[in-house]
Amino acid sequence: MMNAFGHIFRVTTWGESHGPALGATVDGVPPGVKLEADMLQHWLDKRKPGQNKYTTQRREPDAVKILSGVYEGQTTGTPVQLMIENTDQRSKDYGDIAEKFRPGHADITYWLKYGIRDPRGGGRSSARETAARVAAGGLAREVLAALAPGIEIKGYMTRMGVHEIDRSRFDWDEIERNPFWVPDAQAAETWAGYLNGLRKAGSSVGAICEVVIKGAPAGLGAPIYAKLDTDLAAAMMSINAVKGVEIGEGMAAAMLTGEENADEIYIGDDGQPVYSSNHAGGILGGISTGQDIVVRFAVKPTSSILTPRKTITRSGEPAEVITKGRHDPCVGIRAVPVGEAMAACVVLDHLLLHRAQVGDGPRGTIG
Amino acid sequence: MMNAFGHIFRVTTWGESHGPALGATVDGVPPGVKLEADMLQHWLDKRKPGQNKYTTQRREPDAVKILSGVYEGQTTGTPVQLMIENTDQRSKDYGDIAEKFRPGHADITYWLKYGIRDPRGGGRSSARETAARVAAGGLAREVLAALAPGIEIKGYMTRMGVHEIDRSRFDWDEIERNPFWVPDAQAAETWAGYLNGLRKAGSSVGAICEVVIKGAPAGLGAPIYAKLDTDLAAAMMSINAVKGVEIGEGMAAAMLTGEENADEIYIGDDGQPVYSSNHAGGILGGISTGQDIVVRFAVKPTSSILTPRKTITRSGEPAEVITKGRHDPCVGIRAVPVGEAMAACVVLDHLLLHRAQVGDGPRGTIG
Amino acid sequence: MMNAFGHIFRVTTWGESHGPALGATVDGVPPGVKLEADMLQHWLDKRKPGQNKYTTQRREPDAVKILSGVYEGQTTGTPVQLMIENTDQRSKDYGDIAEKFRPGHADITYWLKYGIRDPRGGGRSSARETAARVAAGGLAREVLAALAPGIEIKGYMTRMGVHEIDRSRFDWDEIERNPFWVPDAQAAETWAGYLNGLRKAGSSVGAICEVVIKGAPAGLGAPIYAKLDTDLAAAMMSINAVKGVEIGEGMAAAMLTGEENADEIYIGDDGQPVYSSNHAGGILGGISTGQDIVVRFAVKPTSSILTPRKTITRSGEPAEVITKGRHDPCVGIRAVPVGEAMAACVVLDHLLLHRAQVGDGPRGTIG
Amino acid sequence: MMNAFGHIFRVTTWGESHGPALGATVDGVPPGVKLEADMLQHWLDKRKPGQNKYTTQRREPDAVKILSGVYEGQTTGTPVQLMIENTDQRSKDYGDIAEKFRPGHADITYWLKYGIRDPRGGGRSSARETAARVAAGGLAREVLAALAPGIEIKGYMTRMGVHEIDRSRFDWDEIERNPFWVPDAQAAETWAGYLNGLRKAGSSVGAICEVVIKGAPAGLGAPIYAKLDTDLAAAMMSINAVKGVEIGEGMAAAMLTGEENADEIYIGDDGQPVYSSNHAGGILGGISTGQDIVVRFAVKPTSSILTPRKTITRSGEPAEVITKGRHDPCVGIRAVPVGEAMAACVVLDHLLLHRAQVGDGPRGTIG
Repeated sequence: MMNAFGHIFRVTTWGESHGPALGATVDGVPPGVKLEADMLQHWLDKRKPGQNKYTTQRREPDAVKILSGVYEGQTTGTPVQLMIENTDQRSKDYGDIAEKFRPGHADITYWLKYGIRDPRGGGRSSARETAARVAAGGLAREVLAALAPGIEIKGYMTRMGVHEIDRSRFDWDEIERNPFWVPDAQAAETWAGYLNGLRKAGSSVGAICEVVIKGAPAGLGAPIYAKLDTDLAAAMMSINAVKGVEIGEGMAAAMLTGEENADEIYIGDDGQPVYSSNHAGGILGGISTGQDIVVRFAVKPTSSILTPRKTITRSGEPAEVITKGRHDPCVGIRAVPVGEAMAACVVLDHLLLHRAQVGDGPRGTIG
Repeated sequence: MMNAFGHIFRVTTWGESHGPALGATVDGVPPGVKLEADMLQHWLDKRKPGQNKYTTQRREPDAVKILSGVYEGQTTGTPVQLMIENTDQRSKDYGDIAEKFRPGHADITYWLKYGIRDPRGGGRSSARETAARVAAGGLAREVLAALAPGIEIKGYMTRMGVHEIDRSRFDWDEIERNPFWVPDAQAAETWAGYLNGLRKAGSSVGAICEVVIKGAPAGLGAPIYAKLDTDLAAAMMSINAVKGVEIGEGMAAAMLTGEENADEIYIGDDGQPVYSSNHAGGILGGISTGQDIVVRFAVKPTSSILTPRKTITRSGEPAEVITKGRHDPCVGIRAVPVGEAMAACVVLDHLLLHRAQVGDGPRGTIG
Repeated sequence: MMNAFGHIFRVTTWGESHGPALGATVDGVPPGVKLEADMLQHWLDKRKPGQNKYTTQRREPDAVKILSGVYEGQTTGTPVQLMIENTDQRSKDYGDIAEKFRPGHADITYWLKYGIRDPRGGGRSSARETAARVAAGGLAREVLAALAPGIEIKGYMTRMGVHEIDRSRFDWDEIERNPFWVPDAQAAETWAGYLNGLRKAGSSVGAICEVVIKGAPAGLGAPIYAKLDTDLAAAMMSINAVKGVEIGEGMAAAMLTGEENADEIYIGDDGQPVYSSNHAGGILGGISTGQDIVVRFAVKPTSSILTPRKTITRSGEPAEVITKGRHDPCVGIRAVPVGEAMAACVVLDHLLLHRAQVGDGPRGTIG
Repeated sequence: MMNAFGHIFRVTTWGESHGPALGATVDGVPPGVKLEADMLQHWLDKRKPGQNKYTTQRREPDAVKILSGVYEGQTTGTPVQLMIENTDQRSKDYGDIAEKFRPGHADITYWLKYGIRDPRGGGRSSARETAARVAAGGLAREVLAALAPGIEIKGYMTRMGVHEIDRSRFDWDEIERNPFWVPDAQAAETWAGYLNGLRKAGSSVGAICEVVIKGAPAGLGAPIYAKLDTDLAAAMMSINAVKGVEIGEGMAAAMLTGEENADEIYIGDDGQPVYSSNHAGGILGGISTGQDIVVRFAVKPTSSILTPRKTITRSGEPAEVITKGRHDPCVGIRAVPVGEAMAACVVLDHLLLHRAQVGDGPRGTIG
């Protein structure tokens, strides 16, 4: 359970950055869903490093193989094993790291906890683990497409370091047009220069990503600990380098009054509830309202930078450390598809959990 | 599993605001720990409403009874049932609410999901459910006191609406001296006037609470989904009205560079690691470093306000709603002991999970 | 998780024999199911001791209260808390037991594991705990009645000590007519005399109970560890004093050839599969076939007997022990309603799990 | 959770008989345990078919690869992925099976449940899945060797069809000397002739296997549903073709009186409890006593036989079926190492669960 998530659609990821392979074991997959490796590869390619100068130059083909749970192109209801072999393992880049703990990295905590760690490329704590999540998320998307075709899941960046997007310029189509998945063309330009500067300086910077789930039915979630927002928060916080998670207004809700925060309810043209606003981010009492579900998370700057930092060695000597490996100046960029994948897994899981307890569709009616 | 949390120390809360009783069923309690109802009552009293004019005037004695799992004042290792009977059930206050959905409340989502809901006092979605968490958290504290006596867990408010504390005036002792659990005496004064105004206007406001866990050993947590921060995020987000959760720098990490964010490591006088700063909030790679663990969460303003809000009825008619019941102008105040309780449960759970997999204490040594 | 079972319909039992109360916390209950305490009381009365001379004379009203999860006579989808207060607590009967370990009892293992135990009436290991299971099973039956009305669950005894039923005299109606729930009138007579003799001698004897689930749809269960038979085996083995569990042919399957054991398949008048026999007990590959599901379990003789047995004290002294308390000469009798209750919980749980993964009803069709 | 077992040491098996590969994802592995593929291969070879004329002639090298969780020959505490590639996939042998349901096989239930199934070699319901369990069991054995070196786990057959062993001839050393893992040399001879006859006739027969766990400490297990016997029963019943599970006396306990069944307690030379007998099979109240833990299970005869059996096709036509593939006349033989593997996983899991809740070692002392 330490490396798994989900109640029904249950994903266990496994593998280290520089071991033979990594992957995801997915239990609870509904049967009869079309699935080919290509469908998953699409999402892995989106996350893949080395696509432009803003992401690490480590080049992995990241080719996903389906080892089980699929017969003649359809899921069978048995566990789906998704494996990605590690082919680019230039572990010499990390030699220094075996003895020295990188500040801000999991090196020291893995060591203190387990008394052993795989230092090659960060081992289990490497962002490479997220490839397995993206593969599982791709599978979740295919199941959602079969079970609840109206659902759309889209992530993008809203902040990189000191620069934030201007929401008045928000353009969904822009997201796919720039290397930052940013929905603001002007921001994309500014950010390019900003990140280039950081990259050349061997520095790094944090980011905020937002994922929107459109078309999810009302009724997903449950009190008190299978709340939809609880599971989304856990899902996002479990991603490497994430330090904060928000639903709807998020931390800013603290600054609002009850009057400002209330999403008033009206009857729409189809006789169903519509809301004057979405401060709640589509979730009330842990259960979806049918509005857009909005989750946001902050990614810290990668600690692998070229500026020397003070640290210690395993034997307790003071030291300095510089990370010479291939790294992302802003890991937040690659966190976008990971956040989307986690959102897909959580929404599917709650769809299945809902039909377990309540049956298909929401149960209470209006009017 | 929908109303439960924890891997080993597993808490299932049950009960509605105006039913006969509510409580927590706690499985996985270590044996031989001293436990009397009084020890739990202490924490419930801290959360109890009606203590001053800033919290709801509903007066519940909130007396907790231990129904099982304790023999001659000691836990036996069998499930501990903690029950709080509901005595003050003026449900007439809520009459209007049965038909109208309050904006920003779980009324409509419970209805849409289940097709039935207990409208009396918010039923299961009432903040009253958190009394059960506080009772369970009190139990967790006693177990921690027996197993890891150095651990201290302390919560406080850092923001109420537009007002934030000044960290240069931070004073641990001040926390218990004012009705807001705020560690800044000057803020306490300002907030009193501010909240009084809101209360008289029948309004409400949001807040930010912070919980610090001191003295937790390094090594708590696990990749990838039993990360300590994942579980803390889930625990806090599961509290009513919480919309955002942060660890260490939290959302602000997005604005930092790798140089700024790095907590450099030194060797302390005792030969153990010390850190130049704690941007990480005591957690790296999901595992505790041994520093203070810092978690922060935002509580939205309660949606029960006196200003009429637009809504609809169950039969689909437009309506206005005013909540006349006894409510908190700032529910964030009472969220402080709840956040502490959740932190206690999570830390104890990870302590047990760690000794399951690794044995007692951290395993890797420095020097 | 140590005191809980079920994947979706999740039951956690709590409480000791002579504590203030015991009960079951039931999570994952579908909403909108009619539920009154009376409906559960019916099953508790069936299990209740002291009804005739063949069961312990301890007289408990065993009145169950519903503390949560029900509003205006219907389940709300939130946790249902079922509580039974302990009223008859003549703990002086058990005084000797606090120091001496009764052979064949859990006294010594609880002590060795936890270093503390509640000796009053067996504490947590008392058969009294099964009252909570019966209450939960009654709830499961009501949900089944709403969701899958064709399902019937019926238990009975097939063996008491040296006496076995004659299956050629099997009569469903006879089961309710005698104090042994035995479907063979002649056996009922023989057993009465046999058990009377044992009772007068202060002795006890073992038994075999069988539970049949009729009308369950094909398709319940899942590979590999949520097999329907896996969960039934666990459910039955978890009942106090059970030492063996069988599905269909059970242990006797070892003596058959493949030809003898094959349940041949035909097409019935309705175009659906019928089987020439039911050696499989209604389960193939862990999944129900649509035939009767047949599970059988052996209950050991209670170790509380009047003949002195050699034992030791907590301080390591040799001793003799006689149990003077009120005990059942054949606990197998009262295990029948407990086995039924566990079967009801497991079948409902799998019905919910099936609709989570696959949707309502079986998915593959014949013809 | 449908294909997983274990509380802490959590094994998820995946894969189909004739897919690219199958394996086990093992979470919760303690760190610092020596592990090489060879150590696991030893147990897989024991289970491997085609070793003599009594087991299926399908020849799989069954070579296990460790894909994660091990660094420089030691476990790291992260998930261990064990993969076995399928190399011998003569699926033409099974062509007929795609349309016809074999009586006594999971063909029809998988179809009815999922509406799709992988018919090649039985797909997920093939006994081949047990290779993954044996690999996981091998890993459990290595962890046990490190954590609780005194524990020994040994399985053997006690019955094959009409023939039972004579316990007066029981010889531990004989187990490894014959192809049936039978502890009775004379039985081995009789069984050889018996099984040869069945094999030539294209028939099959059932069996009973027994697994003994020696040297397990007192105190493993927990009320009510994490009982050691509950988990052992579930573990064994989850093995393909198992129809009954017994602890200690098992079903025969039904025939005993309380006097006969009592395992009297004495003080041994070392001041610790010894018992006059072991009717309980080493478990009281769900918790180990420190005696040998004895679990027994019945394996039905394989339904793949040469005698034609009546069945139906997917389109609802009556048909006859003969299984021409390579099959075991007595699958019980190969179930022995599988039962051992499951026992190893369960015991280790409970050792970890015990130290989670109670700490290392039993807690109560005698004397």
